Amino acid sequence: MSLDQPRAKPQERLAAALAGDMDAVNTLIRERMASEHAPRIPEVTAHLVEAGGKRLRPMLTLASARLCGYEGPYHVHLAATVEFIHTATLLHDDVVDESEKRRGRPTANLLWDNKSSVLVGDYLFARSFQLMTETGNMRVLRILSNAAATIAEGEVLQLTAAQDLGTTEDIYLQVIRGKTAALFSAATEVGGVIAERPEEEVQALHAYGDALGIAFQIADDLLDYWGGEQTGKNLGDDFRERKLTLPVIRAVAAADAEERAFWKRTIEKGDQREGDLEQALALLDRHGALESTRETAREWSAKAREALEALPPHELRDMLSDLADYVVARLA
Amino acid sequence: MSLDQPRAKPQERLAAALAGDMDAVNTLIRERMASEHAPRIPEVTAHLVEAGGKRLRPMLTLASARLCGYEGPYHVHLAATVEFIHTATLLHDDVVDESEKRRGRPTANLLWDNKSSVLVGDYLFARSFQLMTETGNMRVLRILSNAAATIAEGEVLQLTAAQDLGTTEDIYLQVIRGKTAALFSAATEVGGVIAERPEEEVQALHAYGDALGIAFQIADDLLDYWGGEQTGKNLGDDFRERKLTLPVIRAVAAADAEERAFWKRTIEKGDQREGDLEQALALLDRHGALESTRETAREWSAKAREALEALPPHELRDMLSDLADYVVARLA
Repeated sequence: MSLDQPRAKPQERLAAALAGDMDAVNTLIRERMASEHAPRIPEVTAHLVEAGGKRLRPMLTLASARLCGYEGPYHVHLAATVEFIHTATLLHDDVVDESEKRRGRPTANLLWDNKSSVLVGDYLFARSFQLMTETGNMRVLRILSNAAATIAEGEVLQLTAAQDLGTTEDIYLQVIRGKTAALFSAATEVGGVIAERPEEEVQALHAYGDALGIAFQIADDLLDYWGGEQTGKNLGDDFRERKLTLPVIRAVAAADAEERAFWKRTIEKGDQREGDLEQALALLDRHGALESTRETAREWSAKAREALEALPPHELRDMLSDLADYVVARLA
Repeated sequence: MSLDQPRAKPQERLAAALAGDMDAVNTLIRERMASEHAPRIPEVTAHLVEAGGKRLRPMLTLASARLCGYEGPYHVHLAATVEFIHTATLLHDDVVDESEKRRGRPTANLLWDNKSSVLVGDYLFARSFQLMTETGNMRVLRILSNAAATIAEGEVLQLTAAQDLGTTEDIYLQVIRGKTAALFSAATEVGGVIAERPEEEVQALHAYGDALGIAFQIADDLLDYWGGEQTGKNLGDDFRERKLTLPVIRAVAAADAEERAFWKRTIEKGDQREGDLEQALALLDRHGALESTRETAREWSAKAREALEALPPHELRDMLSDLADYVVARLA
């Protein structure tokens, strides 16, 4: 997409405003994903790192540091750290989910093997910790290691919550905090920390990342049932994989005995037949579960924008605010 | 084994001398392997952590710190960190090796599934980094994150070197540094670092751990062909798994054309028949590969003991020296 459209997407405006920093991040990533001894490592990481991800998470760190007036070198290290953690979790996720495609390309576990994905993921985790120690800032180390623990905990929780109709909205929130919001909020918070901003602003950046990540993930889960042209998702993937996301959790909570039997058969037992996805969509619709989920996503988006009000006015702050709008605008 | 034998094994004397510290480590491990939200996590870790491992690595940290006169609280954190890193790598190793037994019990990947082993391993890695940040010591963070990267790199190298007759002694050394020596040397080095000892002593502790780990791993690999009563290993496991360890690397280097064809068939192509293990043992014997490997293990053991000479006299220093003796005494 071109930047001379009347109004480019917020992530494209962020990418343009942060282009110089992002070049430095990409250079550092390429340098550090190498391995002197084990050529398999850069093969696997290059496959994933060069696959044209949106680099959203490192951009959040760069934007947060810059809007806080940071002029040192370490926002680049932290942005690369965040991308390494993200890449490591993708490698392990694809093993856990037995995925075959990621960003339109075959996954590393398919191209090489699960072993390589597990071990190269471990390597990237270790590299991410090496990178953050270079900042010499103990607080960012705490924030990022806490985030890594929350991510892993959320993934385990998702594993045990899958196919469990007893999954509550609270558990769902913990799962998506681990899956998405924990790294978003760490990414934004560390930007404020290295810029040595007052505690109130650091907390505001954390709150922004947390709410943005939650809004983003709820919207993503909703699109799995909502569909739409540009989503690039297959309608009903989560249903087929028997994942308990917010729309289904709400429809199950409102279900009568017959509906409950339907969810039990399709999600808990995994006995899915022709026409079941259509039936699931009809039940979601009957209980207004899609509408209410959209409303919840919008509330989190609004929380993200409100959090930014504690920060000084800045062009990048406005772009982050637009980004929070954008993640739910897809649900129009 | 009882301590009133004329001379207990060095690791038993270390365990007795460090019993109070080790209790504190075990308490901290139990506290931190818990998870508020995901009960699967403590189930899996308890299975492994309580399985009666020797706690050799945390003991190295405790002994190093204490013989350096350390009186603060953080040797306990660092010892628990080291054990968490070790446990995380075991969980991932068992997935990579498709193992079914560890310490005489079914592995976690068999009892639960590979997914749980991958994700709980990630959780323990993250927890280990949280633990080390609590020490507030940036240098120990660097040492341990470097070790984590070397471990993962060594595992990837082992993966790509397996079944490759071109594997050199240099590559083997890198693999076993990653597999064993990197965590041993980090475990001992951080003990000296938190005790704020002079650089020469810190380096001596590093050199001790490195050489001890290398001697330990060479001896372990040798015992796979050497056998013996108390080893608890099945003769020839590595041969059947087509691993290139030092005895085989040396026998391959000295092989004539016919012998080379044998190694190519059994190790590279994996076409193994009745009587092949006996033939492999005969070839190892013909080229003196077992004897020379034992000699190499003994040289590393001697290097470990020499390194300790830079440290002040201490009962724990003598036990560490005896430990270096012990890991090769098994090869008598």
